[in-house]
Order: sequence, then structure tokens, then C-alpha cells
Amino acid sequence: MPYQRALVERTLGEARNCVNEQIEALLARNRQTGYGPLYDLLADYPFREGKGLRPAICLSAARAARGHTDQAVCSAAALELFHNAFLLHDDVEDASDFRRGRITMLKHKGAPVAVNVGDATNVMAVQLLLDNTRYIGVHKALLVFNEVERMARESVEGQAIELAWIGEQEFDLTDRDYVRMAHKKTCWYTVIAPLRIGVLCGAPPGANFPVDADLVPLVEIGHLAGIAFQISDDLLNLEAAPEIYGKEPDGDLWEGKRTVMLLHFLRVAPERERRRALALLRRHRYDKTEAEVAWLREAMEQRGSLEHGRRLAWQYCERALAADSQPLAFFEDNEDRRFLREMLLYVVERMK
Amino acid sequence: MPYQRALVERTLGEARNCVNEQIEALLARNRQTGYGPLYDLLADYPFREGKGLRPAICLSAARAARGHTDQAVCSAAALELFHNAFLLHDDVEDASDFRRGRITMLKHKGAPVAVNVGDATNVMAVQLLLDNTRYIGVHKALLVFNEVERMARESVEGQAIELAWIGEQEFDLTDRDYVRMAHKKTCWYTVIAPLRIGVLCGAPPGANFPVDADLVPLVEIGHLAGIAFQISDDLLNLEAAPEIYGKEPDGDLWEGKRTVMLLHFLRVAPERERRRALALLRRHRYDKTEAEVAWLREAMEQRGSLEHGRRLAWQYCERALAADSQPLAFFEDNEDRRFLREMLLYVVERMK
Repeated sequence: MPYQRALVERTLGEARNCVNEQIEALLARNRQTGYGPLYDLLADYPFREGKGLRPAICLSAARAARGHTDQAVCSAAALELFHNAFLLHDDVEDASDFRRGRITMLKHKGAPVAVNVGDATNVMAVQLLLDNTRYIGVHKALLVFNEVERMARESVEGQAIELAWIGEQEFDLTDRDYVRMAHKKTCWYTVIAPLRIGVLCGAPPGANFPVDADLVPLVEIGHLAGIAFQISDDLLNLEAAPEIYGKEPDGDLWEGKRTVMLLHFLRVAPERERRRALALLRRHRYDKTEAEVAWLREAMEQRGSLEHGRRLAWQYCERALAADSQPLAFFEDNEDRRFLREMLLYVVERMK
Repeated sequence: MPYQRALVERTLGEARNCVNEQIEALLARNRQTGYGPLYDLLADYPFREGKGLRPAICLSAARAARGHTDQAVCSAAALELFHNAFLLHDDVEDASDFRRGRITMLKHKGAPVAVNVGDATNVMAVQLLLDNTRYIGVHKALLVFNEVERMARESVEGQAIELAWIGEQEFDLTDRDYVRMAHKKTCWYTVIAPLRIGVLCGAPPGANFPVDADLVPLVEIGHLAGIAFQISDDLLNLEAAPEIYGKEPDGDLWEGKRTVMLLHFLRVAPERERRRALALLRRHRYDKTEAEVAWLREAMEQRGSLEHGRRLAWQYCERALAADSQPLAFFEDNEDRRFLREMLLYVVERMK
């Protein structure tokens, strides 16, 4: 199923520009009143060309809910900064080398600075959420804070689950275990919260203002799309051209990351192959060789594990499209609403 | 100048109990709805016996401002959690071994888990700040958020300044440089924010509700007390019995931490001694020997550097007492007001 590339790329690009402008303005303010060099470091990740998916979802959800860009721009920029803070700390947690086509803050400046800059990025996101009061009032601003708290809590729990798997050398995991972890680690902050926050920012106040029950379908749609997104992301790690994708090729295999492809392989591989793979996965990334990782990559392909991942991603994508077909009273039928639907295809079709 | 030990210890103890109860309740809630093992890890730091200084200042400021404990208890618990999150990340940033008499999360579980648990601790603090709306209403809850954002921003900037000194191997620093860094890194979150937040939580709404200009004297008092606190903390690192103090003895010398004592020594020591000290300080902590660190500790004592620190801490303490003598309309004269004054002496007289 091809998606409307022009609409998706235009919406993503506009969202990136809009959010970058907000972040630039806030960086300028903080550089002036605070310790400048911190904000020079902080500017690194947000201005590496990301997809801008989260802010685009947030801004489009606001406009699809009959609102204006102005009402969601602080929240969208905050989501992008929370995302960057998450990446800065995630790179420390996974000891990653590359991010968005360049070396990570961790490798460039060390863990202490990467942790500090991540914390500072979170603080800047909170600054933007406080600016919200000027654009959407105190009541809505607090609703957004509630959503952000939930989103952040789900993310740290998802990350904790993944770290526990690493700490306990746990590889005996089902797709269901993976989905439970990714629901928390990815879905909330990539799709669910951007959708819900966008609607809360944009929906006109009054008797029809959505209550929590009205927003529940967005949890389902966001869950399904988020899982499709994450499986596709893990597939790109194994398949994409690194100069487009921006991360280390096969980085997930070097790191021993639990993906549905790897878990499938460990379930279906013959015992000897499985043992060889586990012995490799349990070693530190610096104790693995190129040849060993290439063997694992090849064995996974042969056992149909990549195919399993592709099939699963498409299943989630189709379920997301079906869930998105139910009537959602707070949305009107406009171009932004169409973007939100096309985005469900984009998450599995994208090249980076 | 002796302080009223009974009053101070009682107030600190009550604040610890009160805040621990809040944190326990929230941990129970999160364990039930979320990923339990994360909250087991998270419970480690807050229940190591800390001083409880920040929550005690916040609760006393609320009651001195004619308010009740209930109005400040979420904020006080949030401050304690922000403090713990800060310590978890600070231990990663400084590669510290000990905290509150036990090994750090970093050494116990590694940097990935320590970063994740620190992030989760921040999220729990935000949960408490959102609970505030039920006790002090939407308006005050947002004022507290504003204070917390400022506090967090100052802290990350202070930490960034210190990390830049480490990164650039900068030791040519004045007491003024140190005070500027510690103002951001320590004063805001240890004294200024707890005072201001307490007053905002406790003060009765209406025409006399303090505006930002009314709270400016608290920045001055908090600054002076915070610097006195931090210099005393650095002195304790060099002088205290480790079983009381809870950190590694001379840990600051092993880490090469810039303290007013060390900076004084580097300014007054004869060239040969200075060069020997710098060569030692620039080496990684694992490349230093016990004998070398003991030599530096001894040389600092001999050159009057510890005496310089003690004198400076007392100067700041006396200036804090003088600043505290100005009339502050939002405070009444009660036992909590007296605690806030005694606390100014406690920060330099304490044994841990």
C-alpha cells in the first residue's frame, strides 16, 4: 500500500520548521539569561535532521480537531525536545555510537555530559509546556502536563523492562513480551501522547470538549501504529542504507537488542544455531567480530525472521487503519485528518 | 555559634517522615499500575537516610507563611525526589562510589540503570506536582511548576559549568567562579526553591499573596545559605568521619572536584607544590594512589586552605543571618520561622 508521499513529506517538513523555530527562540532566550555553552551542546541533537514525526502528529491532531497551529506549537516543540532528551539518555543506556548520521553525544563528549545535556533538554521541554498557559490557558496547559507525565512514566518503564532483559541476559521472550515493552517504550511518546495532546490543544472548549473516555480510541490507534513503527525501525536497522537511516548498520545485533526478528530466530533456529547465536549475543559488543555479526544477520534472513518482522509490522499497520476507521467526533475531515491516516502507512513504508 | 539542635533535629525528622509517607504511597500506586521492579530500584535512594533539609525548609516555609503542612507536602516530597534524581545522575557524572553510606546505584547497577532510575525519579516528582492541584488549586500548582522549572534549569546549568571545568582541565579558578557555579548547582535546589515554593504553597490567597518581587529576598538568603552549605559539605568531605558523612573520605580529591579549599591551595602553594598537585589532579581517579591523595590533603591543611574554607563558610553564614533579619511580611513569628533561622546555622555546624 503506497502512501501519499507528497502530503506526508510536506506535513513533516512544515512541522520540523515550525518546531525548530520555537526551539531556536528558546535556545536564544536561555543562552542570554543562562550558561551559554550548555545550550550550544543542547542544540546538537534537535537540529540533526530527524523525521519530525511526533511534532507533525501533534500539530495535525490539533488542526484536525478544529484548532490552530499556534495552540499546539509549544506542545509539539516540547514533544520533540522530550524525544531528544530520551535519545541522549538512550544512547548512554545502549552505549550507541551513531545517531541521525553522526556520532552520539555519548561518544563525542562522554556519559557525564550526555546525561547532563539530556537533563537540560527535559528542562527546556518543561519551559515550553509552561509557555502553553499563554496560548491555551491554565486549564488546557495542565491537561497537557498530565499527558506528558503519563507519557514519560510509560517511557521510563519501557526502558526499565528492556534494561532488565539486558541485565538478566534474558532472550527467552515472545512477541507479546516485546509488544508490552514497546507499548511503553515507544508507542506512548511516539504516537499516543502526540495524538492526545494535539487534540487537547486544538479542540474548542465547551460542552463537546473531549473527556478522557473520548480519547481512549487514540490509545488503541497509537498503540497499533507505534508497534508497527518500532518493528519497522528495527527492520531498517537490519536493512536500510546507513547513510539514509543514520544509525550504525546492524547496530541492534552488536548491542544484542531484543527485536521481534531476533526473538523469532531464537525460537525457530535449530538448537546448535540457537546456542551459537546466544553465545554471541551474551558477549559485550566490543567482544564481537564483524564476521560473527554478519553470520547472525544472514542466519536470521534464512530462517525467515526478517520476513516474520515485515509481516507483523504490516499486520499492526492494517489493524491501525481499521481502528482509525471508527468515527472520532472531535476530528473534522480535512487535510490534517488525512495526514494522520497516511501516517499509519508511512510508519511502515518509510526509508529512514 | 551553636544552633538549637533539638528544634532543628525535630523539624528535619518530622519532614523526613512526612515526605517518606508520600513517597511510599506513590511508589505503591506506581508498583500496582506499572512495572514493579523499576519502583523497587527507585525506592533505594530516597530511603537511604538523608538529612531531609529540602523538604524541611519547604514545609516550614509554608507553615511560617500561615499555611498548613497539607498544602506543601506534595511539593516537599517532589523536591526530595528531584534531589534524589539529581544525585543518581550526579553519581554517574562524577563516577562516584558512595552515597549516603552505601555504594552508588552507578556502581551497583551500572550507568544505564542509574540514568533510567534517575529519569523515573524525576517523573515521580512531576506526578506529585500534578497532585498539587487537589490541595492548593490550579493557580498555585502552576506557580510551583514555574519555580521547579527555574530550579531545574539552574541546577543543570551549574552542573554544566562544573563538567566544562573537568572537560577543559580548568583549575585556574577564583572563589568567585566557584560561587557562581555553586549558586546554580546547589543554592537553587537546596535552599532558594524550597523557601519560595513553601511560601507559595502556604501563603493565604488574596490581596497580600506574595508576588515575585516579595520573594526576591528569599533568593538572597537562599544564595548565602546555599553557599555556606556547599562549602561546609566540601569541608565535611575532607574532615568528617565517613561513617557519619556517608561519602567516600577525600572523595573530592580523588575526583579532582573544584572546591574553595582546593582552589585556594592552587593559588597560594609555591610553584613546585602547585605543579605536583596539578599533575595529580589531572590524572584519572583510578591512576591516583592513597599516598598521593594523602599528601595533597596534608599540603592543603598546611597552606591554610581548610581554614580558608571554614572562614568563608562562616562569612556566608553570617551574611545569611543578616539578610534574614530584614522584615518579611509573608512570614509570621512561629516555631517554623525560628527553624528557618536556625537552619542558617545548621548548614555550617552539621556533622553530616
